[in-house]
Amino acid sequence: MVARRIVVVGGVAGGATCAARLRRLDEEAEIVVFERGPYVSFANCGLPYYVGNVITNEDKLLLASPALFRERFNIEVRTRTEVLAIDRALKTIAVMDLDAGEESTVAYDELVLSPGASPIRPPWAGIDLPGIFTLRSVPDSREIRGWIETRAPRKAVVVGGGFIGLEMAENLKHRGLDVTVVEMAKQVMPPLDSEIAEYAAQRLIAEGVTLVLGDGVTAFEQSSKGSLIVRTQNGLSIDGDIVMLAIGVRPETQLARAAGLELGERGGIRVDSQMRTSDANIWAVGDAVEVKNYVTGQWELVPLAGPANRQGRVAADAICGRDTKFRGVQGTSVCGFFGMTVALTGATEKSLRRAGVTDYKCVYLHPGHHVGYYPGAQTIHLKLIFRNSDGLVLGAQAAGEQGVERRIDVIAQAIQMKATVFDLEEAELCYAPQFGGAKDPINFAGMIASNVVRGDAELAPWSEIGSTIAMLLDVREPAEFSAGKIDGAINIPLGQLRQRIGELSADKEIWVNCGVGQRAYYACRILTQHGLKARNLSGGFSTYKVLYPGK
Amino acid sequence: MVARRIVVVGGVAGGATCAARLRRLDEEAEIVVFERGPYVSFANCGLPYYVGNVITNEDKLLLASPALFRERFNIEVRTRTEVLAIDRALKTIAVMDLDAGEESTVAYDELVLSPGASPIRPPWAGIDLPGIFTLRSVPDSREIRGWIETRAPRKAVVVGGGFIGLEMAENLKHRGLDVTVVEMAKQVMPPLDSEIAEYAAQRLIAEGVTLVLGDGVTAFEQSSKGSLIVRTQNGLSIDGDIVMLAIGVRPETQLARAAGLELGERGGIRVDSQMRTSDANIWAVGDAVEVKNYVTGQWELVPLAGPANRQGRVAADAICGRDTKFRGVQGTSVCGFFGMTVALTGATEKSLRRAGVTDYKCVYLHPGHHVGYYPGAQTIHLKLIFRNSDGLVLGAQAAGEQGVERRIDVIAQAIQMKATVFDLEEAELCYAPQFGGAKDPINFAGMIASNVVRGDAELAPWSEIGSTIAMLLDVREPAEFSAGKIDGAINIPLGQLRQRIGELSADKEIWVNCGVGQRAYYACRILTQHGLKARNLSGGFSTYKVLYPGK
Repeated sequence: MVARRIVVVGGVAGGATCAARLRRLDEEAEIVVFERGPYVSFANCGLPYYVGNVITNEDKLLLASPALFRERFNIEVRTRTEVLAIDRALKTIAVMDLDAGEESTVAYDELVLSPGASPIRPPWAGIDLPGIFTLRSVPDSREIRGWIETRAPRKAVVVGGGFIGLEMAENLKHRGLDVTVVEMAKQVMPPLDSEIAEYAAQRLIAEGVTLVLGDGVTAFEQSSKGSLIVRTQNGLSIDGDIVMLAIGVRPETQLARAAGLELGERGGIRVDSQMRTSDANIWAVGDAVEVKNYVTGQWELVPLAGPANRQGRVAADAICGRDTKFRGVQGTSVCGFFGMTVALTGATEKSLRRAGVTDYKCVYLHPGHHVGYYPGAQTIHLKLIFRNSDGLVLGAQAAGEQGVERRIDVIAQAIQMKATVFDLEEAELCYAPQFGGAKDPINFAGMIASNVVRGDAELAPWSEIGSTIAMLLDVREPAEFSAGKIDGAINIPLGQLRQRIGELSADKEIWVNCGVGQRAYYACRILTQHGLKARNLSGGFSTYKVLYPGK
Repeated sequence: MVARRIVVVGGVAGGATCAARLRRLDEEAEIVVFERGPYVSFANCGLPYYVGNVITNEDKLLLASPALFRERFNIEVRTRTEVLAIDRALKTIAVMDLDAGEESTVAYDELVLSPGASPIRPPWAGIDLPGIFTLRSVPDSREIRGWIETRAPRKAVVVGGGFIGLEMAENLKHRGLDVTVVEMAKQVMPPLDSEIAEYAAQRLIAEGVTLVLGDGVTAFEQSSKGSLIVRTQNGLSIDGDIVMLAIGVRPETQLARAAGLELGERGGIRVDSQMRTSDANIWAVGDAVEVKNYVTGQWELVPLAGPANRQGRVAADAICGRDTKFRGVQGTSVCGFFGMTVALTGATEKSLRRAGVTDYKCVYLHPGHHVGYYPGAQTIHLKLIFRNSDGLVLGAQAAGEQGVERRIDVIAQAIQMKATVFDLEEAELCYAPQFGGAKDPINFAGMIASNVVRGDAELAPWSEIGSTIAMLLDVREPAEFSAGKIDGAINIPLGQLRQRIGELSADKEIWVNCGVGQRAYYACRILTQHGLKARNLSGGFSTYKVLYPGK
């Protein structure tokens, strides 16, 4: 009996995981990995930090060598080898040895595509000028380091204010460059809802990064001094000695498309829950495939390493006859820069709107990452989104300095398990003074949301704050109120509310504001029980300041 | 209509939470809180850090004053007022104003008991000598601070090596004292399985704390120099200028017992899932009540602030006619000292054995808290316990410097949601290089455990390592093997295993060891697929070193 041959195209993340898993399940199969680049299994998420010289040793980025694959897994890895075409009828691929320039044909029994995604380089004038870089590979990062070390650039322009763009901004700043970020959207971190991204923007500005938002690049030019000029739609000319393009990635689907494999509505390779393409013997994993969002059920392109690895395992299992299924992607992500952490999991308001979902509510809170009486407490700004009809947790976003990823991870696990806000209310998490609170931020989030679902504290819609005819009642102390308030609000401190309740009318809705939402909740309970119509402005003035940052 | 009167006995944690929640649900009721001590709602978890001068300002420990309760919640709080007796037939309590020395009778419609637990002070000879302290209240901590500041003690003896004992050890060390910890059990942190507690012990010893384990105090004496001598069962005489007793707490049940309320098998007040005692109008919450363990279903005494607060809410809800139920206690806890974090959630092997549970397995792993290629990765030592028949997650324990509480929190949430190890395998958590890995420690734990449940990698029982007739195969590199190995093991590096498989016999079980368990797993897969009987020694040599620390 001849062993079957499984060919994996692409040896990073999903492809490498798939190959290693295949070997653990099938000691007999011939497993071959073709990788176009010079390395397998390198740390692509580490590249910005290698550019920033936080990671100083390039070898650290190489997680596994072809020799290790051979020795440990009996897997043949051919780097610098490009797969040119698939002949599905013959079950062969055309392969080019890039160094030797030789083409050959390789037969497969099962074929796994893990081609990844490539950075978008729009056809802007001057896009190919020297000093304009994208970052996808170890050689890319080596080239950028070389540019920084030999040219000693002083000014950098980062095009794109997403996760990678902001990581690049921090790392270039770390190398001593002045950094301007140009982002087409009106906010940084476009996947996030804008008010949470506002925390990131404020931090970037405080650290001296120049933000150009709501503006797009139109062209690059070389100045007479040899630097680059970035021209924008709004007519800006931004000077830079180096330009980083970080405006997203596009799934590498040429091979799949040319082979007639089905693509999805977002332009990625379409696969089933076992990562099988429209060809029964061809599988696809990683950034090139479309995945179903776990919360909204929508098809999405989600270029994340964690899901890519899980997909690699699922494909290997399926190829070996197991019925493992990929559950979809929650989109859990985190980004750190300048001491700030911003993270999200599940749906955002944006993604729910895109999916046409209306049965949801959001609450905001601003708890300390641990109890306030222990030194060093840092605020976590947290937005929790849940289904209004039954309290199912749909998503969360958070920003802060400490403990952000921990809370988002707990909510990520909750979402995976279809938890409700009532479950978060009852969560039993680690508590000692330096680690949290007897009521953790997760518990507070659950309680606040549960109050909404149970009808104990109705939410006032922040979006209508400028146009409402409701009475705006601020229950903070006078000193807080005079330091900053919502236009048109009147002030009755919580401690006086029971005595002064006669000043309020039962005819009008009362929208209650305070510092972070807690006193307003207490006030709403008092008012409601006295027969008034009260609603809470969730998260209080702290939320107002990011929803209406100009005010 | 006369408003009903709800009386709360004990104004800290559960009691304070219950009172405030009652007001939010019932604006009309008369709510009175009696507190024996001088303060309501103080930060008892912060007391060791106030002794240690990490928290320097006593006012920070006072979370709410009677004035705030009155102003914000319209709740009357009477401090320094002890409740002496309950007359259930008349629905009254006898109350003593401790300052005025006056007794009075107060009627109640509903009565909530939140008396807490008091530190155990055994009747040892010399127990009342000056310089021997327990720590439960703000005045206690003030007295200890006074002793430290006026007597300038050089040596401290902490009796009890549990969570509070170790927090005290750190804080006394922080004040410059030499510290000896005396613990009756053969390990510190008795709730943990001993091999995880071993990490704590090693850290304490490295920081200069003297550990006396498996030994109990018999008496205290005063030396001629005025210091204290601590006598132990094993004949030690330990010199100390201050002694902290931290050998646990006992529920305060006198009032409940005298009133004829039902107590449980562990000596706490017995309540139903709504925190109702055997009297329909009396409720009890916090450290004084017995709670059901969420995982094992056993009755337990679990003096933790988080559950106490949740119980306070449940009791308030029930009193106001809501059907909220307390779900039980997972026992999630965390302790930090000398830069180390140790945490647990759910069942331990110890607690499963006590509950008579045998359908479980444990896996060990030692991943970095983030990817190794990003600077500063710290090892997390993690033990995951799960039901062998279906993979239900039962518990986890972890020790390390970074990210420990985050992983335990994720598992705590998973346990609450009845997650399986297959769910942990698929967890989608925050990943960027400084925050974790594309495969988070949680994913690794899930994968390793799933391999066991699916039968892909059987576990070898560590407990039989000294007596087994199995072959012990170590697949590390020769240099690692010669630096430290399990007695009787032979060495075939993983990379040579396929070539040298003929050296192994199919007659005997092969128990495979490596550094942390990963290479051994790869080896097991190779051996099993070649028809040999292989089992993995989970967690490898890193686990061996804490299971057999003397070796």
